[in-house]
Amino acid sequence: MLSDIEISRQAQLQPIETIAQEFGIIPAELTLFGSTKAKINLSIKQRLKDNRDGKLVIVTAVTPTPFGEGKTVTTIGLTQGLQAIGKQACACIRQPSMGPVFGIKGGAAGGGLAQVVPMEALNLHLTGDIHAVTSAHNLAAAALDARLYHETRLGAEEFTQASQLPALDIDPNKIMWRRVVDQNERSLRQITLAQGASNGPIHDGGFDITAASELMAILALSRDLQDMRARIGQIVLALSKSGEFITAEQLGVAGAMTVIMSEAIEPTLMQTLTGAPCLIHAGPFANIAHGNSSIIADDIALKLADIVVTEGGFGSDMGFEKFCNIKARQSGKAPDAAVIVVTVKALKANAELADGEARDEMSKLQAGFVNLAWHMRNVAQYGVPVVVAINRFESDSFEELAWLKAEVLELGAFGCEVSEAFTQGSQGATQLAQTVVHATEAGGEFKYLYELEASIEAKLMTIAEIGYGASGVNLSPLACAQLQTLKQKGFEHLPLCVAKTPLSISHDPKVKGAPSGFELPITELKLNAGAGFITALVGKVMTMPGLGVRPGYLNVDINEHGEIVGLA
Amino acid sequence: MLSDIEISRQAQLQPIETIAQEFGIIPAELTLFGSTKAKINLSIKQRLKDNRDGKLVIVTAVTPTPFGEGKTVTTIGLTQGLQAIGKQACACIRQPSMGPVFGIKGGAAGGGLAQVVPMEALNLHLTGDIHAVTSAHNLAAAALDARLYHETRLGAEEFTQASQLPALDIDPNKIMWRRVVDQNERSLRQITLAQGASNGPIHDGGFDITAASELMAILALSRDLQDMRARIGQIVLALSKSGEFITAEQLGVAGAMTVIMSEAIEPTLMQTLTGAPCLIHAGPFANIAHGNSSIIADDIALKLADIVVTEGGFGSDMGFEKFCNIKARQSGKAPDAAVIVVTVKALKANAELADGEARDEMSKLQAGFVNLAWHMRNVAQYGVPVVVAINRFESDSFEELAWLKAEVLELGAFGCEVSEAFTQGSQGATQLAQTVVHATEAGGEFKYLYELEASIEAKLMTIAEIGYGASGVNLSPLACAQLQTLKQKGFEHLPLCVAKTPLSISHDPKVKGAPSGFELPITELKLNAGAGFITALVGKVMTMPGLGVRPGYLNVDINEHGEIVGLA
Repeated sequence: MLSDIEISRQAQLQPIETIAQEFGIIPAELTLFGSTKAKINLSIKQRLKDNRDGKLVIVTAVTPTPFGEGKTVTTIGLTQGLQAIGKQACACIRQPSMGPVFGIKGGAAGGGLAQVVPMEALNLHLTGDIHAVTSAHNLAAAALDARLYHETRLGAEEFTQASQLPALDIDPNKIMWRRVVDQNERSLRQITLAQGASNGPIHDGGFDITAASELMAILALSRDLQDMRARIGQIVLALSKSGEFITAEQLGVAGAMTVIMSEAIEPTLMQTLTGAPCLIHAGPFANIAHGNSSIIADDIALKLADIVVTEGGFGSDMGFEKFCNIKARQSGKAPDAAVIVVTVKALKANAELADGEARDEMSKLQAGFVNLAWHMRNVAQYGVPVVVAINRFESDSFEELAWLKAEVLELGAFGCEVSEAFTQGSQGATQLAQTVVHATEAGGEFKYLYELEASIEAKLMTIAEIGYGASGVNLSPLACAQLQTLKQKGFEHLPLCVAKTPLSISHDPKVKGAPSGFELPITELKLNAGAGFITALVGKVMTMPGLGVRPGYLNVDINEHGEIVGLA
Repeated sequence: MLSDIEISRQAQLQPIETIAQEFGIIPAELTLFGSTKAKINLSIKQRLKDNRDGKLVIVTAVTPTPFGEGKTVTTIGLTQGLQAIGKQACACIRQPSMGPVFGIKGGAAGGGLAQVVPMEALNLHLTGDIHAVTSAHNLAAAALDARLYHETRLGAEEFTQASQLPALDIDPNKIMWRRVVDQNERSLRQITLAQGASNGPIHDGGFDITAASELMAILALSRDLQDMRARIGQIVLALSKSGEFITAEQLGVAGAMTVIMSEAIEPTLMQTLTGAPCLIHAGPFANIAHGNSSIIADDIALKLADIVVTEGGFGSDMGFEKFCNIKARQSGKAPDAAVIVVTVKALKANAELADGEARDEMSKLQAGFVNLAWHMRNVAQYGVPVVVAINRFESDSFEELAWLKAEVLELGAFGCEVSEAFTQGSQGATQLAQTVVHATEAGGEFKYLYELEASIEAKLMTIAEIGYGASGVNLSPLACAQLQTLKQKGFEHLPLCVAKTPLSISHDPKVKGAPSGFELPITELKLNAGAGFITALVGKVMTMPGLGVRPGYLNVDINEHGEIVGLA
């Protein structure tokens, strides 16, 4: 089989205007970025406001393993399959981050015969949204540190005289707004700033990956440009020495940040290998961020398509949970069905082998099934019909596939289908598509995991116990102090965005299967007032990845024809 | 008069395809970015290779003052004026940096009736080139620090075993590759990296503004993608503990950096208010960087236009000098004429008032004239015909303008014209345009300031004495040591790129007029092996600006219609 980028390059793409037109987007609503990408003007929302919404399907997965479960392959494959059975389908996915693109695997456009194309356009700059988030985020950081510098240098009175601005009296040890870069940058996790003779009070800081920026969540959750402007103004950047919140509005930087983001608010239209429309908007990293694609993209797609397929990052404990408890709450649009992607390989990797016993392949699969069972129950408790998609690999035996399907149906799934979208494209996903259509028609009674009115502690407890199977939570002294501040300032009724490892349902990446009986350690609580949630950092989670010993960038180059090679 | 952004917004723009077509670019060579921007495919160079080159005019200026001399206004105004007298004219300018856009003045698209439009598109992300340079640059920094981390953590042998890569043995105290951000970021000038428990050996580092990246110079000086790939491979990132250069090629990151830059290599086409073509490519900051627009853009424009107007940043001691001694040497294309932009205000500000004498306005103008005279002589010594353009302000008296013009002609300029492009647009620059056409026809005998074969010391001496009027140079101990390394490694025959204050011809920003008798203090010599020059840092120059007490971002916002306000 050809490599992903070879398949992408050999594909016969349609002009993106044609894709748009067939999808019901008029030329005046398109801003072309070459012939394969276009941004969609938000005026479309007004034009389509009376259309009926299509069905919304969210693709999630079992707990991820290093093999890759193929969630994006399945998302794109399902969209292509739906199209093949005569549905107007659209995929809504997140823009890949260059961190993983050059750090690990080389791309995030799906793969094989289920891809968004051209994959290099998706995987690199796309239409610049992540760059815009990085720039706007870092402008606020620069503005804050410059204000600290000038106020310190001049004193409050002289500063106000020189600038005609009130002194903010920023506490250099209480700056909450870090910087961001779309890169795997271990050595920027924790840095000391403003060294040197006269660069300002020396203080600590660091960089997160851009996808984890509150601005990325604001991009994903905003309804329109004015909503985004208001949210950006509400971002809390730091504490003053007297303990007051300092917002982007007070710093006078919220307008400029919005201006930098004013093109990014438009989703980007691309196409799958079969010419199905795909909207790309907002960023990944559902482990450390909210990490779902945007409400704006979903809203537009739902007005135009019969079925919209979106994905939540990692397992159902991560992106799916946040989709339901954060995004759906703000959008008012619950999923009509969920697809859980599983592979035989992943379940075997989830088998507990602690007893040292050498098991045969089928025993490993059977032992690892607890992980899928857990994710099925987790999704089902939101009242969403569950379809399990087995992303088939060559190494899977018929016996294994048959056993797995029978177990899944036995456990009460709405359906279970083998997907061969990677090797067969649309035709490998038509059965899955049929079953998903039936699931959306069956419907369910959606419910949130917790109510907003509950206390922060109660919400944390619910997510830990019902969301992850923990026996309780354990707050660090720092988290306790932050909890008190959040209560005092009146931010108790926000939903929670948990940042934890995606490699286990628990906080310990080594614990596979369906862990229980553990205490969830909450190390920090961070207010995201503009995005409208509180981030709870769990265990040793880090908001900035690092590069490994053999990073993905080693494979990437141009060839003698100037073509890109090594993205996959 | 309306504000710049109001004028820009009210302009009747032509579709960029029309601008391209009228200029001789065929549709297959265009990648549209909306209706007002397009990238030009480099295949055009092959198609046009037998066309005769047009004339090349470089716009420079007297020593800048806080009032602004209007160099971009004159560059765009002249292009519009040339078009008005029937010439096929094209402007080649640099992409504005968001640092100054949000730091100081709010934009760099010209102004009044001489603008590149839409100005907000030019001033913000444009087509993403600066973002691409930032990303590619920082990938190399992340890759280098990750390699340092893993080699330190594992030891050379175990590292090689795990990675199948040779150990580079990077000296954490000899890292030459800083990071970049397109922002005015004082507190990132000097930082301590990799703090925390296990993020790698703690070491010093810092950020420059993106325009000062060697990658930006490579973008400006490359002939094509393969040339860029080769240059990126040659970038020296650090020294090993045994004193060997470590290149981007050795780190295995040069291919990925090129891939990130593979769209940026295409110049962007926009239009002036009158529909004249304008190519935008590479970055500003001719004080701390090479800071000229790209050879690729000039090459394309020269094949299509009768006259190409480009600009070198700041006074003729800065961008113009680098244009001649670095860019023209690599491109083989010398300027056919130079325009020196001057304002009555700027010359008055250059008057030496040290004697405390209260002078009348005319005396101040006369006293400050030495600065213009110096720049005229400086340009003339390159054998380039000089036209002085007086950018007229309302406050200038007829008497002042008449005196200034007479003096300029007396001093041997090819011509001197008053430009009213800001208030009158094309019609305010037709006389200037006529005179510039005559100057390019008169021609000159171009010569470099120094030959490459000279030693680094000799080249520094020539630039200092003949280029700036200094009496000599003074190398710091660090610069002396670096000089020895450059000699040992065989990099002596590169041109020099001086980083110094643009606010004086000397290294001291307070010294106005035409200073002489000073020693030029060289603090550092930095190899840019990929770009092909050695940067010489002079005095207290900084490669990262800071935000002032009342930064430009305070004015920028969206209004109730979602339109951008406050860029000017």
